[in-house]
Amino acid sequence: MTRFQPPRGIRDYGPEETVKRNYVFRRIREVFERYGFDELDTPAVESYDLLSAKGGGGEEIKKEIYYFKDQAGRELGLRFEFTTSAARYVTNNPNLSLPFKKYQIGKVWRYDRPQKGRYREFYQCDADIIGSAEPEADAEIISMTVDALKAVGFSDFYVKVNSRNLLEGLLVQEGVPEGKCEEFMRSLDKLDKIGEEGVLEELVQKGFPEPLAQSAMSRVTSQESLYSGLDKIKPENDLATKGFEELEGLARALEYYSPDAEIVLDLSLARGLGYYTGLVFEVWSKEFTGSLAGGGRWDNLIGLLGGKSTPATGIAIGVERLILLMEEKGMFKDLPKTACRVFVAPVNDQVRKEAFKILKILRSAGINAETDLMKRKLRKQLEYAAAKGVPYVVFVGPKDLAEGEVTVRDMRTGEEKKVRIDDITSMFS
Amino acid sequence: MTRFQPPRGIRDYGPEETVKRNYVFRRIREVFERYGFDELDTPAVESYDLLSAKGGGGEEIKKEIYYFKDQAGRELGLRFEFTTSAARYVTNNPNLSLPFKKYQIGKVWRYDRPQKGRYREFYQCDADIIGSAEPEADAEIISMTVDALKAVGFSDFYVKVNSRNLLEGLLVQEGVPEGKCEEFMRSLDKLDKIGEEGVLEELVQKGFPEPLAQSAMSRVTSQESLYSGLDKIKPENDLATKGFEELEGLARALEYYSPDAEIVLDLSLARGLGYYTGLVFEVWSKEFTGSLAGGGRWDNLIGLLGGKSTPATGIAIGVERLILLMEEKGMFKDLPKTACRVFVAPVNDQVRKEAFKILKILRSAGINAETDLMKRKLRKQLEYAAAKGVPYVVFVGPKDLAEGEVTVRDMRTGEEKKVRIDDITSMFS
Repeated sequence: MTRFQPPRGIRDYGPEETVKRNYVFRRIREVFERYGFDELDTPAVESYDLLSAKGGGGEEIKKEIYYFKDQAGRELGLRFEFTTSAARYVTNNPNLSLPFKKYQIGKVWRYDRPQKGRYREFYQCDADIIGSAEPEADAEIISMTVDALKAVGFSDFYVKVNSRNLLEGLLVQEGVPEGKCEEFMRSLDKLDKIGEEGVLEELVQKGFPEPLAQSAMSRVTSQESLYSGLDKIKPENDLATKGFEELEGLARALEYYSPDAEIVLDLSLARGLGYYTGLVFEVWSKEFTGSLAGGGRWDNLIGLLGGKSTPATGIAIGVERLILLMEEKGMFKDLPKTACRVFVAPVNDQVRKEAFKILKILRSAGINAETDLMKRKLRKQLEYAAAKGVPYVVFVGPKDLAEGEVTVRDMRTGEEKKVRIDDITSMFS
Repeated sequence: MTRFQPPRGIRDYGPEETVKRNYVFRRIREVFERYGFDELDTPAVESYDLLSAKGGGGEEIKKEIYYFKDQAGRELGLRFEFTTSAARYVTNNPNLSLPFKKYQIGKVWRYDRPQKGRYREFYQCDADIIGSAEPEADAEIISMTVDALKAVGFSDFYVKVNSRNLLEGLLVQEGVPEGKCEEFMRSLDKLDKIGEEGVLEELVQKGFPEPLAQSAMSRVTSQESLYSGLDKIKPENDLATKGFEELEGLARALEYYSPDAEIVLDLSLARGLGYYTGLVFEVWSKEFTGSLAGGGRWDNLIGLLGGKSTPATGIAIGVERLILLMEEKGMFKDLPKTACRVFVAPVNDQVRKEAFKILKILRSAGINAETDLMKRKLRKQLEYAAAKGVPYVVFVGPKDLAEGEVTVRDMRTGEEKKVRIDDITSMFS
């Protein structure tokens, strides 16, 4: 091991990895832009004041982030998510035309315990529509996310949707005291992790009577199609009615979009703590356990930061997990290891000049190509091309040249054929 | 002014700016990849140990960077350039096949005094060939840089080239004591900033006799074509001979590449302090003062970090300055303000469903498009599309629909025409 290493929990992405990552990011970007979203690029370094704002300004956050002071004593930190910065951007730019449809793809930092698939510096990918309170905005986010995941190679989608308002309203209908709903939902949120029994145990420990915990929980743990699911709900208080109407609106808007996914009403879905304000959703693939993307309404954050109260909805695609799953499932297997398509190999030193000419022809035609830069013998050149994963080698040799030809080898099949130099670009386009 | 702002010297890039930036970065990436380079993505957070290594481990660097400790007391900092991290990556991956051709585009951080065009968080763009000592590698870097700048919209290039070895050798030939060359070169390096008189004054202040300073300086301040320039040089010591041969090799290799630029031998070019080890080069456009990109050989850094001694050459394109110049010269004027190409505008609420259908048709054809998500009247929709800079609006109205048509407006010219819905995608592809 050499002396200098990346810091603990932080890694390099070498060329083989960036080829995969750039493929994923590019596909996602393309879909986001197809939906009329533009990129927002906010700072990696933000004020500590901002970073702690969402959590209510408490000091605990310092333990979970990279916090530091600059030489003038300013309290700063590295961003650990994008939404707060996006909300700040909106408060700082009151003349922005709304809805502001933006995406962010970039690194965030968390001072977490490193473990498999979890790093202290990693990528996140968000898309948000800021300024529209209409369910069409939520439907657009959901539809776009399904399309983005599809573009990356996933399939068999279902989207879990819910409204936190409906959940809370139903819990009250079932007899959970209003002030205790947040606490109830916090346990319920662990359903995927600890199962119904685990949640029940936790609720009882928290002091909820077992029959109440049981009946309230069973009321909200059904999953079925959004459309038939809504038919069975009778909202009996304002909160439940509000949530019900949010979901009705979403159901109507999703019909416009008809995303390539089943839409499932999961009444237990709460997506964590106080951050979300109404509709919440997750995109799953039947092929994998755990959601691929999740989001919802965050109508309060911009107001909380002192901006004009502005509704917003958005989603985060878990790109690190996505890439891990794609790796495990061999979804990158057809992707070359390099962006380079052709290695031009002079078979001896006398034809180097000709090799450069052919290289220039290829590059001028927009074909990614390279040649030997180390005056190496042919065998070493081929080893390099193979190790790098360049899919084609063009052999430039004196006999072929005399015929106006070169020999092209497909490095995956080993197949070779002679190609006229005049036709060489058409071979790769 | 709202309470939360980005930290001093750090800024947001809103959508209009990311559209420009992504255009520039994408064009540069395309050219880099056309030359067979892949991306390397190293951490933003590196160990302080590494960050200070290039400068010899001194503490002064702490004043110029964001330095901090994590909660375990590790000394860390934000990267302020890419080369040291790239060198670390090579030492950490001894089985990497060479030459390793990589580029890096990303943010770096410097605790500088903020001023016009200079920020504390900004983008850098590097490309390097690691592992080849041949001048073909330098020629490839130069040729690629010219092509990248051309792809972005610049023209009229000239490339200043030199070898630090030749410069030092010539200074010795002129009578500068060997141990004093570095000091002499340090002043000479300010030629662009303070002119010949300023450099002379500084040299005299440093204790160089005026006649020596004058003659040595005039020996190295000529600029002419590399090919004729080399003819006039008679190296008389080992260092000068070494540098001369480096430049001869470069001249020969550049003939292979024939980059679209004049190649100028600038004997005074040193590019800063001890970092570069031989050939140095800068790419200029005649339209602008100051170089657009600069680089050279850095054969010692990997060995310095404890890796196997490995030759390397590379360039940094000054992307922040590039974008500033492009802005000033109106080079972005034909670039839309948004990636979105079409806004689909329902003229009333009754045709919203039809508008969504047309939106879906456009998106399915890969055309970036959006519609109203706020149930707004037509006038407000048009204001939004205009403010965002969407180039086309498709009006969806009941009369047109009855004829199977929509009306398309070019927002730049105001021109309108009816288009059959069946043909709508061909309009934008």
